[in-house]
Amino acid sequence: MAISAGIIGATGYTGSELVRLLHTHPEVNIAFITSERYQGQRFSDVHPQFTSIVDIELISTSAALVSGADVFFLALPHGVSMKFVQQLKGQTARIIDLSGDYRLSAPAVYEKWYEKVHEYPEAFDQSVYGMPELHREAIQKARLVANPGCYPTASILALAPLIAEEIVHLESLIIDAKSGITGAGAKARDGSHFPNANDNFSAYKLKSHRHTVEIEEQLCGLTENPVTVQFTPHLLPVDRGILATVYAHPTKAVTDLELKEIFRKFYSNAPFIRIRETPPTIKDVRASNYADIYMTYDERTHRIIVLSAIDNLVKGAAGQAVHNMNLMFDLEESLGLNHSPLRP
Amino acid sequence: MAISAGIIGATGYTGSELVRLLHTHPEVNIAFITSERYQGQRFSDVHPQFTSIVDIELISTSAALVSGADVFFLALPHGVSMKFVQQLKGQTARIIDLSGDYRLSAPAVYEKWYEKVHEYPEAFDQSVYGMPELHREAIQKARLVANPGCYPTASILALAPLIAEEIVHLESLIIDAKSGITGAGAKARDGSHFPNANDNFSAYKLKSHRHTVEIEEQLCGLTENPVTVQFTPHLLPVDRGILATVYAHPTKAVTDLELKEIFRKFYSNAPFIRIRETPPTIKDVRASNYADIYMTYDERTHRIIVLSAIDNLVKGAAGQAVHNMNLMFDLEESLGLNHSPLRP
Amino acid sequence: MAISAGIIGATGYTGSELVRLLHTHPEVNIAFITSERYQGQRFSDVHPQFTSIVDIELISTSAALVSGADVFFLALPHGVSMKFVQQLKGQTARIIDLSGDYRLSAPAVYEKWYEKVHEYPEAFDQSVYGMPELHREAIQKARLVANPGCYPTASILALAPLIAEEIVHLESLIIDAKSGITGAGAKARDGSHFPNANDNFSAYKLKSHRHTVEIEEQLCGLTENPVTVQFTPHLLPVDRGILATVYAHPTKAVTDLELKEIFRKFYSNAPFIRIRETPPTIKDVRASNYADIYMTYDERTHRIIVLSAIDNLVKGAAGQAVHNMNLMFDLEESLGLNHSPLRP
Amino acid sequence: MAISAGIIGATGYTGSELVRLLHTHPEVNIAFITSERYQGQRFSDVHPQFTSIVDIELISTSAALVSGADVFFLALPHGVSMKFVQQLKGQTARIIDLSGDYRLSAPAVYEKWYEKVHEYPEAFDQSVYGMPELHREAIQKARLVANPGCYPTASILALAPLIAEEIVHLESLIIDAKSGITGAGAKARDGSHFPNANDNFSAYKLKSHRHTVEIEEQLCGLTENPVTVQFTPHLLPVDRGILATVYAHPTKAVTDLELKEIFRKFYSNAPFIRIRETPPTIKDVRASNYADIYMTYDERTHRIIVLSAIDNLVKGAAGQAVHNMNLMFDLEESLGLNHSPLRP
Repeated sequence: MAISAGIIGATGYTGSELVRLLHTHPEVNIAFITSERYQGQRFSDVHPQFTSIVDIELISTSAALVSGADVFFLALPHGVSMKFVQQLKGQTARIIDLSGDYRLSAPAVYEKWYEKVHEYPEAFDQSVYGMPELHREAIQKARLVANPGCYPTASILALAPLIAEEIVHLESLIIDAKSGITGAGAKARDGSHFPNANDNFSAYKLKSHRHTVEIEEQLCGLTENPVTVQFTPHLLPVDRGILATVYAHPTKAVTDLELKEIFRKFYSNAPFIRIRETPPTIKDVRASNYADIYMTYDERTHRIIVLSAIDNLVKGAAGQAVHNMNLMFDLEESLGLNHSPLRP
Repeated sequence: MAISAGIIGATGYTGSELVRLLHTHPEVNIAFITSERYQGQRFSDVHPQFTSIVDIELISTSAALVSGADVFFLALPHGVSMKFVQQLKGQTARIIDLSGDYRLSAPAVYEKWYEKVHEYPEAFDQSVYGMPELHREAIQKARLVANPGCYPTASILALAPLIAEEIVHLESLIIDAKSGITGAGAKARDGSHFPNANDNFSAYKLKSHRHTVEIEEQLCGLTENPVTVQFTPHLLPVDRGILATVYAHPTKAVTDLELKEIFRKFYSNAPFIRIRETPPTIKDVRASNYADIYMTYDERTHRIIVLSAIDNLVKGAAGQAVHNMNLMFDLEESLGLNHSPLRP
Repeated sequence: MAISAGIIGATGYTGSELVRLLHTHPEVNIAFITSERYQGQRFSDVHPQFTSIVDIELISTSAALVSGADVFFLALPHGVSMKFVQQLKGQTARIIDLSGDYRLSAPAVYEKWYEKVHEYPEAFDQSVYGMPELHREAIQKARLVANPGCYPTASILALAPLIAEEIVHLESLIIDAKSGITGAGAKARDGSHFPNANDNFSAYKLKSHRHTVEIEEQLCGLTENPVTVQFTPHLLPVDRGILATVYAHPTKAVTDLELKEIFRKFYSNAPFIRIRETPPTIKDVRASNYADIYMTYDERTHRIIVLSAIDNLVKGAAGQAVHNMNLMFDLEESLGLNHSPLRP
Repeated sequence: MAISAGIIGATGYTGSELVRLLHTHPEVNIAFITSERYQGQRFSDVHPQFTSIVDIELISTSAALVSGADVFFLALPHGVSMKFVQQLKGQTARIIDLSGDYRLSAPAVYEKWYEKVHEYPEAFDQSVYGMPELHREAIQKARLVANPGCYPTASILALAPLIAEEIVHLESLIIDAKSGITGAGAKARDGSHFPNANDNFSAYKLKSHRHTVEIEEQLCGLTENPVTVQFTPHLLPVDRGILATVYAHPTKAVTDLELKEIFRKFYSNAPFIRIRETPPTIKDVRASNYADIYMTYDERTHRIIVLSAIDNLVKGAAGQAVHNMNLMFDLEESLGLNHSPLRP
């Protein structure tokens, strides 16, 4: 029998991507989709690309709470998601939270980097960081999965094998990351106004982006020592895609072949990681759940460079969430996620 | 048992789109893909987005001819396709030709508009114009399907109901069409050089584009009178998508409601036609097989305006080809084509 | 002595383009720039591209009213501009209004198409439609110039010679126009949100755009008969530029050479009109005050096609305003407007 | 009397940008423009944006050699430029070479990184690296100026003050640079084919780009110790613009204020350097000769981050060349270069 899935939050990009992926997932039935603002309208009124595909009527969050579902996908802003987790307290349904509310290790860390009080800290204990490549087994058993941020997904995948293998200096890590504009959400803002973003490029939130701590905490989990990363996000004039260019100093000499072997081994069971022979482009993974990774050692400078490319809305959000769902419900890991990347 | 499909021509966009669609089609097995230039290399070497998805080795066309397949998709330039049709003469395999070689009514028309001698005119008799909305039954029985051009697909779908219903003056038709740059093919040229195309827009081939006659001939088939269209193509700075803005003078007064009813009735059995309540954007159909059509009557000017949006590589090429294959092999019409449009 | 120019409205695109052009105009001194919202800040705080170039402090509109200037450029929304014209009632300064408040023939027409009451209809009598190619002499003497809309500029320039020469049927005119997104203003909206606009294209305001009447009225002024145009605007995924594709039925046979001669003669004194031998692209005129026009006759369909390309922010707004100023102050017509188009 | 300027090489982007800038330069007369391929055609036939602006007929290089000019701008590929320098051996004209042929310190270095034999090494002695911010006085007297590469311009400007002031570790320098596609030239190639570049992003030439050594050599000139940089170029889907994100470890603690003061002092006489208070975008400098620089210290990671934005075709090529010409001919330094950046 199909898994009954409820999607909380219809209007954002993670919401519509979840619908795009779940609609053709062979083992899922979309039970309901919520929107406070558009309740009563059809999902396809809000997202006309779904006309005649997903025309179901949007319901309110409170109606969703009493509707019952096997799994709730929370496609809500941080700060809002936690309230919903709290309201689901008594239910047995699994929860996959796509916000940042339960990604960090503790309420205090959350409050420092998100600059807001956490309203339902009790759920931290049950939450598992939903990166299948690192936490496959914990995810399978989790009631609450904190789906990773988009930048952390690209960044952690690029660094995890190097840190697990203990071959890089932990204070040498620089992540120069570039993201498409959907990363900033579906709401029109000055920075995403077409004439501001088109034919343009810039860095933002230097030294202070909250994904920094998410990356550091996850990498710390792979070693016994503190990890500090320099994380610099940039805004690309594209819809989708993240490319992270990562620099690290190795503790010892290393060849390209050895590097590749370290990555291949670390990701030997990871169906969506593709170790590339040439630098990936973001269009090589667009609209798919793949993460393409390339690594090389520069003998001249004694640095390792890793390139990591994902689609921020799929592997960096909705696709990873479906991947987590597959694990939680003991389905074949890549079920419903076999879309080839869209290029051109 | 799965249909065995051979794809002739791996390097272009129609070739890679066919692979993208057929790879996840539940009733198809891709038997082989050819490339003269890259034979011996893997398909994913030429199109890295398919790394670890479609890694089969490319073979030569001559090898393909003796390999056997239930259906051959010819993703070749016009002028080249006809040679291959000729070479398949004795075989029972079905052929779906994505070039322009058999779209027109007769060799003489071809030679006038394509300015080249037709080398295998014998096959014209067997060929069926592969637009399912107009020729469903003939396609089911056809051995050779001439898959429609991208502009004709958008244009004919916008005008067919009006002409079949005989409510427009046949000399009043203007098609102001705008296409993404993939319409010009995968080969780098001056016009598609990024600094020339980006942030730019222009009309081209005024009065002379060869899709004009393809549109006229198909529309003629719906009436007993000659049809002349003004067809003006333009180049949009986008990858995919065609929007045709169509103008026509009605022979009698008409309301928006009546117009809509005419279209709904004409397309009542067409699973990929979506009659829209608001003007469609090309992103509403991107990466999908849908054609979104909007129509209205302007009382001030006494003109009908129809907007028609498709993805030129899917509904305008590879998707329509797979649709034709489904009909030819008596499969459910939309099998393997249920991808939601990709937006954003 | 330099002309003292005041710019009312700093935050929009017409405001910043005026500053870009006037800053290097050899006979102009920018006396002040206003902004209610940002008064007290520097102009370059709002538009950082002007850092160290134009750092003057923004003042309030009321301060501007008592500051005195030889010419006021009103870069205000329609409905707001008229109030300012009223407040300048007693002053001798010339006014160039870039809004739509005085472009139409009468308050009643304004109120019908702009759906708002005109608050200062008295100024209609003094206002001159600021298209130098049509009204050079009236502009020279005008106190109040209504600077044309961007679409009307491209459209009227394409049709004026044909109508003045009386060689086209006046009910046959179709203007299929495509504009860059700056045409919709500097304010972030859903339609201009990058992920909505990028790689996308659509028609909007079919049958109802208020530039329709502006075009019709100006064309009417060139003949004795009523003119009706079909005007369909579309949104291009580019920053700047309008291409209008114009269709008309001639009253008699005409050759391309005759057509070209009609245009050359009509624009013999127009320094910014370039009659092109090949279809223009919008990048051929980007960031410049040129209008590139191409015309041809289709013998097959008996239609004239005219292509007209401008930069909506320059020839369609700020550049045309400076051109008008030059005329009003008896300067060389193209002074300060000799920038070559920016391509790529 | 005006300076007579000859432009060798009309077809590329540096050639057309030189024309755009020199055409309105108050002290320059463009004597001739050459093109082997298009000689006899008008410059505006090749670059239609210059229609009716610069219509002069293109001449051959050999004709240019006997035409005489006060200054030759060589807008030629590397390897070709050196031949022309050799042919000008006996002439007194000044030469500004926009290729890479004389940017490096010695023929041997050239041959290693450009992988080609230098055919006229004799001119190395006379050549001066044409970065006015570093070599103003030498440029004034130089007969042959080697105009800097685009990436080196952005990169060196970001690092020079830190190295001159000796406050960073010389082996800690990482330049993560992103460039618009015009950086790859005017010739259509696979990588610049619109469907490959649009909505895409990637790194290229990791560890091996020849601009690496140009940066290192110039930075070495500011200190007594060897400088090694990690230089990683990326391809942005924009026409113009470079943003370099630069990382360095300081030798001692430093505040943002101190950093800013170091830059202000170093560039106190540099009219085109703008020290920014917020991170610059590439559109803030587009189509202008400005370099916008932002610097900050991260206390958490003990790193300095510098952002440097230029237009690769202006400050990174033609604008810097005109700047050099102004210095060589004792003109006001910024003459003819006062264009405000084009945004949007």
